[in-house]
Amino acid sequence: MQKKLPLPVLVRLSALYDYLTKMRGAGVLRVSSAELGAVLGQSSHTIRKDISFLGVAGTAGAKYDTGDLQTLVGKHLGFEQIRNCCIIGLGRLGSALMEHFATYESGEFRVVAGFESNINRLETLQSPIPLYPAYRIEEMLSRIQVELAMIAVPPEQAQEVTDRCCDGGIAGIINFTPVVIRPKNDSVVVRSIDISGELRVLSALLHTSTATVNKPSEKE
Amino acid sequence: MQKKLPLPVLVRLSALYDYLTKMRGAGVLRVSSAELGAVLGQSSHTIRKDISFLGVAGTAGAKYDTGDLQTLVGKHLGFEQIRNCCIIGLGRLGSALMEHFATYESGEFRVVAGFESNINRLETLQSPIPLYPAYRIEEMLSRIQVELAMIAVPPEQAQEVTDRCCDGGIAGIINFTPVVIRPKNDSVVVRSIDISGELRVLSALLHTSTATVNKPSEKE
Repeated sequence: MQKKLPLPVLVRLSALYDYLTKMRGAGVLRVSSAELGAVLGQSSHTIRKDISFLGVAGTAGAKYDTGDLQTLVGKHLGFEQIRNCCIIGLGRLGSALMEHFATYESGEFRVVAGFESNINRLETLQSPIPLYPAYRIEEMLSRIQVELAMIAVPPEQAQEVTDRCCDGGIAGIINFTPVVIRPKNDSVVVRSIDISGELRVLSALLHTSTATVNKPSEKE
Repeated sequence: MQKKLPLPVLVRLSALYDYLTKMRGAGVLRVSSAELGAVLGQSSHTIRKDISFLGVAGTAGAKYDTGDLQTLVGKHLGFEQIRNCCIIGLGRLGSALMEHFATYESGEFRVVAGFESNINRLETLQSPIPLYPAYRIEEMLSRIQVELAMIAVPPEQAQEVTDRCCDGGIAGIINFTPVVIRPKNDSVVVRSIDISGELRVLSALLHTSTATVNKPSEKE
């Protein structure tokens, strides 16, 4: 447990971490808040302010050591620890996610299991990652210590699956269904990604031309 | 062009429309703001206020006609018109999106083309939707009147592809890459979906325990 960061700061620092990791991999040794801001779509002032939450004061024009800053952000956000994830619902979207993450390399999380309620479907699926029937969610989540779940089931199954995840001791959920889910355990964190919903919003934005249409959407 | 709606209202009305469409399909004739709020994770007051933007006053406890309300919301958000979408970048994520949307039924948008810069890869892909090499983006977007693009290319190609889309007359982009893209045409609307980024944020939330962790994330 670290000090509490406001959610928008945490979201921006998380994106900053990802970019610093790439820069470090590319051998870039030093970077300014202006350069970071340009890539992340933020002002250099915001970048410096976010970093100051971690106890490091930045001055305009000065450069950060890329490696030191990445380590610092990673430490504060807990990225030194690899978290186990699962994907629940292996229909079209879930299978796609499974394929996307099967070989995804990340130092922060790894997909270790998939679940599907349709046993016939389950038998036809091939994956380098172990797959289980949905009735084993509670058992397997606690046995293999899965902390994060991506839920891609049909909307009408979303709440039941959420309940099972809570029983299995899940800590966080990404909800890919268009419905709102309510974890019975208040400590479970939920984030939502609704791809069709985003397309619909985009479509509505084109039609209604709100005052915000000219600005790229922020990550948060 | 309709009157300008604030972005959060538009996002909520878009989700409301999706739910009303499902209710209508299920034969539900009337629905209250409290019922809608419960499903959409909003207060009944917010639901009534959002609907009032469309010129319909709601009173607490009264019910809306499901069909009338769906038609009204759809008309204001421009959902009577089916918009053509394309997917650019047919690597793991892009192919997954293509598979997801190939048979996706929606009255609001349809995927009509896919683009990939790697010609060898393009030749190995099979899809019921026409696929084209990336150098034809400008030509095809304007020829088949594609309004929306989902960009799932490697980060280093994101800006170049955005430029090509703008040259092809794109109106809106969903950016699946983790980098910020800048359309050269200011009228192009951008929304971002960063799946790995969401996992990273979830992971950080579990670690830092911010004040917001107990609340499901809003769609906006």
